[in-house]
Amino acid sequence: MTIGVLGGGQLGRMLALAAYPLGETFVFLDPSRGAPAGQVGDQVVGAYDDLAKLAELAKRCRVVTYEFESVPVAAARFLEAHAPVYPPPRALEVAQDRLNEKRFVAELGIATSPFFGVSTHEELEHAVEALGLPVVAKTRNFGYDGKGQAVMRTPEDVAAAWETLSGAPLIVERFVPFERELSILGVRGKDGTKRFWPLVENRHERGILRRSTAPAPFSTPADAARVQAQAEAISAQILDALEYVGVLAVELFDTPSGLVVNEMAPRVHNSGHWTIEGSVTSQFENHVRAILDLPLGDTSAPGPSVMINLIGGWPERAALLALPHVHLHLYGKTAQPGRKVGHVTIAGAGADTTRLADQVEAMARTSGSFRE
Amino acid sequence: MTIGVLGGGQLGRMLALAAYPLGETFVFLDPSRGAPAGQVGDQVVGAYDDLAKLAELAKRCRVVTYEFESVPVAAARFLEAHAPVYPPPRALEVAQDRLNEKRFVAELGIATSPFFGVSTHEELEHAVEALGLPVVAKTRNFGYDGKGQAVMRTPEDVAAAWETLSGAPLIVERFVPFERELSILGVRGKDGTKRFWPLVENRHERGILRRSTAPAPFSTPADAARVQAQAEAISAQILDALEYVGVLAVELFDTPSGLVVNEMAPRVHNSGHWTIEGSVTSQFENHVRAILDLPLGDTSAPGPSVMINLIGGWPERAALLALPHVHLHLYGKTAQPGRKVGHVTIAGAGADTTRLADQVEAMARTSGSFRE
Repeated sequence: MTIGVLGGGQLGRMLALAAYPLGETFVFLDPSRGAPAGQVGDQVVGAYDDLAKLAELAKRCRVVTYEFESVPVAAARFLEAHAPVYPPPRALEVAQDRLNEKRFVAELGIATSPFFGVSTHEELEHAVEALGLPVVAKTRNFGYDGKGQAVMRTPEDVAAAWETLSGAPLIVERFVPFERELSILGVRGKDGTKRFWPLVENRHERGILRRSTAPAPFSTPADAARVQAQAEAISAQILDALEYVGVLAVELFDTPSGLVVNEMAPRVHNSGHWTIEGSVTSQFENHVRAILDLPLGDTSAPGPSVMINLIGGWPERAALLALPHVHLHLYGKTAQPGRKVGHVTIAGAGADTTRLADQVEAMARTSGSFRE
Repeated sequence: MTIGVLGGGQLGRMLALAAYPLGETFVFLDPSRGAPAGQVGDQVVGAYDDLAKLAELAKRCRVVTYEFESVPVAAARFLEAHAPVYPPPRALEVAQDRLNEKRFVAELGIATSPFFGVSTHEELEHAVEALGLPVVAKTRNFGYDGKGQAVMRTPEDVAAAWETLSGAPLIVERFVPFERELSILGVRGKDGTKRFWPLVENRHERGILRRSTAPAPFSTPADAARVQAQAEAISAQILDALEYVGVLAVELFDTPSGLVVNEMAPRVHNSGHWTIEGSVTSQFENHVRAILDLPLGDTSAPGPSVMINLIGGWPERAALLALPHVHLHLYGKTAQPGRKVGHVTIAGAGADTTRLADQVEAMARTSGSFRE
């Protein structure tokens, strides 16, 4: 009953911890010996494009999934010949290229920021002219946590951005004046059943998620219901179009004119970590239920939750655990500037959630560090 | 930061799954290769009295605990020379011998059934005469899940019981006409701080726990508070007397004249499995917090829970997971008659908890089997 996972980071680790109670076992493929998931399950140490290692993984499992979206599509396709791979490799293909992703979303008729594909300096100038400043340029591939991005506010920025990013194919988007960032986590089963967790409000810092609040606060319950329905409709369209199986995260901008898709991640997602304690069924368990063709679990949240990422280090455990309603998650990593080494979820605290989260965030801030 | 555990069964498995998020790692000593805990952590395969294996375990960890109470006390003492062992081996010593245990409890002034130690047929006759029928005889050592017990209701039963049990030293107790069985789970930190989960009502079948309901139902909140306070006082006395560190379970009879201690288990306990979903901090996490000298977590239960053991087999997973509020826990064991292979917790279901539990229990009953 072994599940193969491409990637052995914290997402894989939490998948395993959620699915062991279902009687599953795991084998992870990851190039780093002693990866976070390898500490709690079997690991094949190897590169994602090493066919011998991929074959070893395939031989040992009956279903394959992945826990980050930079897995080579070729690896997923290779494995597909031996065992089902969920989410479908097509989702990887779409999500790995920001330009393809944006086109895919736009073609579904879902609102995105206006964008251009850019390969030359001339195309960049053209895009800036057409979109109007400010714009943001991103490398089409392998950008995450704010890496490979440049915001251009002035004509001088344009030249500087080209210096920094040139060489890689780019996508240039009009800067969206959003009020806040949201994300919608959805899960789709093989039979097309879909479930959605409540919308999450996310705050990033230097391009890295710092804090998620769930359910995202709204002025009125009617507002919450309306925007939730919009977000679910967007996620549902994407899930169905990809014949998706598993958990999908869609990052959204909340703007005065409605929701705008920023990007998607075809996997369990950092903005869904609160679901471990905060919802009836976690994103991790539901992802596994989906890929095993088991009934999906209840995604409702009985109370409010706040998740604080621990970045670059973590506070003394005793200090954190002395606080009420605090749930600590360390990933078995060594501390390095800018590295996500754990998270804390404050759940079920009622009126105190925000205050406790502020306290934990302050502790996280003094114990961790970003890369410079 | 490795925790050594004597025993690699489901209790060890759930300890590991609860404490990985705290950043801990585990090594289990268990004679069976591929034991439930060994599937999710490192395992030293060896007997509990194999000094070389014990030394290997000691070398690899900075604190040792155990997950069943039949661990040889000598093994715990041996390990104590290398690393702290919690709960203290003295607790093992007391709990391994039903007669010592009863004497220990009685000497604290806590109500127990009247009892006699019995080694000869003559002593048995004397005990029966002094206590009056019905009585129950139990082997002093290694009796669990109803093994090594005999109830005597008639003088003929006495001869038959002697046939069955003779050879082993016995404890003979007056049969307590209890209304129901309860248990109190408590945890004590190194600094003497104590926390208690709400009382649990337990129903056994053929000597094996079938169902736990938490918090145990009472006619009135005042009754609940009164009996909870009594149970906590009993547990607190035992915890303090043993200078205990970790989780302790005390099984109680609820009788018309008050609570009577049946037995205790110096470890996490089957009647506390509901705490994984049903309380803010599970018994497993708090046991680990205690032995690591970390602050203890909140033991309150936001709602009602029912735990159903899966004995001798388990229902189809898809059928179970299609039910709302159901949390499945399989232990990675093969099915054998009478073997606990998993459990299901129904939590947060409000008014439906009992109905859902009945449904799950019926499913468990048709899929499992007891030894004959």
